[in-house]
Amino acid sequence: MRIASFRAEGKESFGVLDGEKVIDCGRLLAGRYRGIRDVLRHDALDELRAATDGASADYALTDVELLPTVPDPGKIICIGVNYHDHREEAARKTADHPTAFPRYADSQVGHGSPLVKPRETDKFDYEGELAVVIGRPGRRIDAAAAFGHIAGYSCYNDGSVRDWQRHTGQWLPGKTFPGTGAFGPALVTADEVPDVGALRLTTRVNGQLRQSAEVADLVFDIPAVIAYVSTFTRLDPGDVIVTGTPGGVGLFRDPPVFLQAGDTVSVEISGIGTLVNPVTDEAC
Amino acid sequence: MRIASFRAEGKESFGVLDGEKVIDCGRLLAGRYRGIRDVLRHDALDELRAATDGASADYALTDVELLPTVPDPGKIICIGVNYHDHREEAARKTADHPTAFPRYADSQVGHGSPLVKPRETDKFDYEGELAVVIGRPGRRIDAAAAFGHIAGYSCYNDGSVRDWQRHTGQWLPGKTFPGTGAFGPALVTADEVPDVGALRLTTRVNGQLRQSAEVADLVFDIPAVIAYVSTFTRLDPGDVIVTGTPGGVGLFRDPPVFLQAGDTVSVEISGIGTLVNPVTDEAC
Repeated sequence: MRIASFRAEGKESFGVLDGEKVIDCGRLLAGRYRGIRDVLRHDALDELRAATDGASADYALTDVELLPTVPDPGKIICIGVNYHDHREEAARKTADHPTAFPRYADSQVGHGSPLVKPRETDKFDYEGELAVVIGRPGRRIDAAAAFGHIAGYSCYNDGSVRDWQRHTGQWLPGKTFPGTGAFGPALVTADEVPDVGALRLTTRVNGQLRQSAEVADLVFDIPAVIAYVSTFTRLDPGDVIVTGTPGGVGLFRDPPVFLQAGDTVSVEISGIGTLVNPVTDEAC
Repeated sequence: MRIASFRAEGKESFGVLDGEKVIDCGRLLAGRYRGIRDVLRHDALDELRAATDGASADYALTDVELLPTVPDPGKIICIGVNYHDHREEAARKTADHPTAFPRYADSQVGHGSPLVKPRETDKFDYEGELAVVIGRPGRRIDAAAAFGHIAGYSCYNDGSVRDWQRHTGQWLPGKTFPGTGAFGPALVTADEVPDVGALRLTTRVNGQLRQSAEVADLVFDIPAVIAYVSTFTRLDPGDVIVTGTPGGVGLFRDPPVFLQAGDTVSVEISGIGTLVNPVTDEAC
């Protein structure tokens, strides 16, 4: 099942994708759930599946504005330097623990919406990543049980303001400017992903290949990340773990190449979808 | 005006303090506001003041369980190494920008509740700090206008799990374990604080002096911090900025001394209040 958050006819809703069409679950379930996070909180994916089975579509996918897959996660925890080739290009040592930092929910945009290059920077960079959406809550989740806590997957572009990321040792300022994180196009439920390690992540800028890796190349795999993160904070339904970016970011190209207004970035993950966003300058 | 969040008779509420008594504003205003954050969001401090003027108290302060001053802030942004003496003891260079990192709302406890030493650590440390609570929202707030965005002040203990803080360069894992941040006892509205720089912050463990500084000793003062933070993220009513800790943390004592179950930590800020918390081991 593929579930997207969207705006149509001026209203925010969420729905199940049926090919290129959208079944509006806000309407179908008469407002019983406020969105994907609320569905997950009520453990209602099966209810959603049953309700939409055979239901007629409300919109063409091209007629809705997609929102961030989960527009309102309580926590978005990003994992840094978590692909071997990115660790090498960043000249960082192998670590004993995942590098975890946050971004705020209000920094996100959906598929098709512009990524906003803040007016404070000329060093806005892409980071194509696999996003994991938590379904079942937990604290100190065993790695062996971690997949049971995952609702599904989506694509993420952890857009980074490199100069602000490096103002101090703490990355938060460069990782949460409004409009710098793209999340979508939709949540693909975990039952459709038998082997997450086999997924291939590909980032392109204006059609040009920039990043390519298999999720199996992660330094800390998804169960290890969930076990670590859930030790220091409780994970709740709708929380998002952005699992890391492969080598090939703009910052470490020679010479560095940053995003400019008019560029288009795509993050494609096999079996999950393709997240496409134009880049725009911030309106003054 | 002093406003506290509390639980009484099994119910969460918030109220205005009248000396050692509490006027229950949840009851008085018949549920019009869900809590302090909601009052601030509706710019309703004056309404609260008018409604409680002359109202009779509902509880003795000793009969309620105080909750974190704002139990549900959208963002808690902590500022690191922001007192000169702490910067020196930490052997860090002067920085051009404030060091900003987050903690999550579910890591907080109120005045009187135990601070929880996580079972994963023997390096649990105090950090006494002044907390600023945002009243008026804003993005890219001018330093000159910053005080107009402040609703008030409270005390904070940014309890830190030092080994987890240093697992990698990113401090989040050591700064957000459940039960490690104390916030209270109450919000003191800004009109009662004519000169925030003159406030004296004193941290004691078991009555023994550990930290003492004036807020005027901040490296980046409160307007500079608000200007910086509001550039990379929007500040909303109820958001909390924890402004930094002075020298004297346990980590940098010789030898280092960490908190143990049975210790009591107090963070006193002149004119604001005294936040007192026992330390407990985590229940297994």
